[in-house]
Amino acid sequence: MNLRAKPGKVIKQVDFLDISAYLETQRATVDTHLDKFLPPEDEYPEVIHRAMRYSVFAGGKRVRPILALAASEAVGGDFERTVQLACALELIHTYSLIHDDLPAMDDDDHRRGRLTCHKVFGEGIAILAGNGLMAHAFQLLTEIPGDAGFSATKIEVLNGLCRAIGTQRGVIAGQVVDLVTEGKPFSARELEYIHSSKTGALIEASVYCSAVLARADDKYRRCLKTFGLKVGLAFQIVDDILDVEGSREELGKTPGKDTVEQKATYPALYGVEESRGTAHRLVEEAIAAIECLGDKGGALRELARFISIRRF
Amino acid sequence: MNLRAKPGKVIKQVDFLDISAYLETQRATVDTHLDKFLPPEDEYPEVIHRAMRYSVFAGGKRVRPILALAASEAVGGDFERTVQLACALELIHTYSLIHDDLPAMDDDDHRRGRLTCHKVFGEGIAILAGNGLMAHAFQLLTEIPGDAGFSATKIEVLNGLCRAIGTQRGVIAGQVVDLVTEGKPFSARELEYIHSSKTGALIEASVYCSAVLARADDKYRRCLKTFGLKVGLAFQIVDDILDVEGSREELGKTPGKDTVEQKATYPALYGVEESRGTAHRLVEEAIAAIECLGDKGGALRELARFISIRRF
Repeated sequence: MNLRAKPGKVIKQVDFLDISAYLETQRATVDTHLDKFLPPEDEYPEVIHRAMRYSVFAGGKRVRPILALAASEAVGGDFERTVQLACALELIHTYSLIHDDLPAMDDDDHRRGRLTCHKVFGEGIAILAGNGLMAHAFQLLTEIPGDAGFSATKIEVLNGLCRAIGTQRGVIAGQVVDLVTEGKPFSARELEYIHSSKTGALIEASVYCSAVLARADDKYRRCLKTFGLKVGLAFQIVDDILDVEGSREELGKTPGKDTVEQKATYPALYGVEESRGTAHRLVEEAIAAIECLGDKGGALRELARFISIRRF
Repeated sequence: MNLRAKPGKVIKQVDFLDISAYLETQRATVDTHLDKFLPPEDEYPEVIHRAMRYSVFAGGKRVRPILALAASEAVGGDFERTVQLACALELIHTYSLIHDDLPAMDDDDHRRGRLTCHKVFGEGIAILAGNGLMAHAFQLLTEIPGDAGFSATKIEVLNGLCRAIGTQRGVIAGQVVDLVTEGKPFSARELEYIHSSKTGALIEASVYCSAVLARADDKYRRCLKTFGLKVGLAFQIVDDILDVEGSREELGKTPGKDTVEQKATYPALYGVEESRGTAHRLVEEAIAAIECLGDKGGALRELARFISIRRF
């Protein structure tokens, strides 16, 4: 059975065998829309738009947008609206990666197998490209189609995303704790804080804000929030494990860097086996949390399972 | 006549003699609200909130918030709503200054007479503090008081601000052109682009978005937009002149830096006298643009005049 759909169409159902095709199709859909929503490369001042596009189209997995699309489908959301949110999520994620890679932060020369933004465009432009992506993401969210009566929903989505990004348990808060604990002993509590803020918060927001945008019932919003939180944490734990076990080809970056830099990771604190067990448990709990969605949660379930077994 | 009002109260009328007292009062009002709206210094992770507050409370003139409050008063806007917008504008302005001062950008050690954020907290935290202020500013905007029916207005304000910040003639676009032209010959067109984007766009948005938030008639929005654009450009030209003529005590930073770094400035291209003339002309045009406001435009007129004669 081939469930591959054309870009722009959301597949209605999915089974385990088709997850690769599903991911490929959804990724193509997201990429088509990202291209549409970003300023063109030849728009003045060109260098910033080239830098933004360089990092956005650097081969990302599009996990957050794909989760947003799957969550929307599960609760009957509108595709055009959701794909705009999905693209904004990817722009925000890319902004955080560009800044994370800077010499003053993680100091990475490679990301997804290519030179990082600041290695190609210089640090100044990389900082501004990150800022530009954040501003453009918020602009996209304000321009999600809908009449004036839909504005309260957009404000709720925007507020959820600001909180997911911010300094109070959001992505930036996670980056801060990650930065200040580097090379120092860290506690289990700090580790959980870094992962659930730096990675978990935006993945949680991807499914939660998608449900808000679809004006889903509170019951569904709550279960999707739990699902997102657990999947987000599992995703980061698997990332940590891959840094220990993965190859350069699979990862597109230098493996083992976390260990060298004494980063706060699950394998460093609990070992690889226990970390793998935790990731599996979190994914199972995430799947249990969306039982209320019934068959409509099929894609989300498969995505959660994929996240725990992925090799890249 | 003493028109000094208590913080929290907006002065109804102002004349030339009272501009210093007016500025002092409004600044105190803005500072009180900034303190209320920012996360406390002792909230985890403390270092980021300390860094954000360090730069926000570094003695800024609060030009953008004060213009927003004056514009709101001129068109009958609500104080509580406007002061929240006003504080968001100052957070956005502070974020752009923190990033501007980074070694990869303007590389400034001092700002407003104090060490810059990255000199005190390190580059990584300074980058994140800027990002945190941007995210927090947007969050504040989503939380401006008002029922669901007011959401469309908030979305319009948010959209206007995203555009004022962004890479398409916004602050970031101006920073990009400023960065890439440094030390190189620049054209009059590039200079106008840098100033109207890097400084003009946010000052324009300060009065325009304030009018949108007040749900002012299109007529008033348009004339305030013109006013803001011209005042914003004049403000930056005066900044350029002060860099040539000001003292370290007045400026709180090293004067003459623009010349040493061959920055694109008005005095560099047109000389000090012609630049001063342009600033005066722009301010007069700005004042003419808000004739439709009548007596209610009094504070805005005085603020515009102050901007052209200020010494800091």
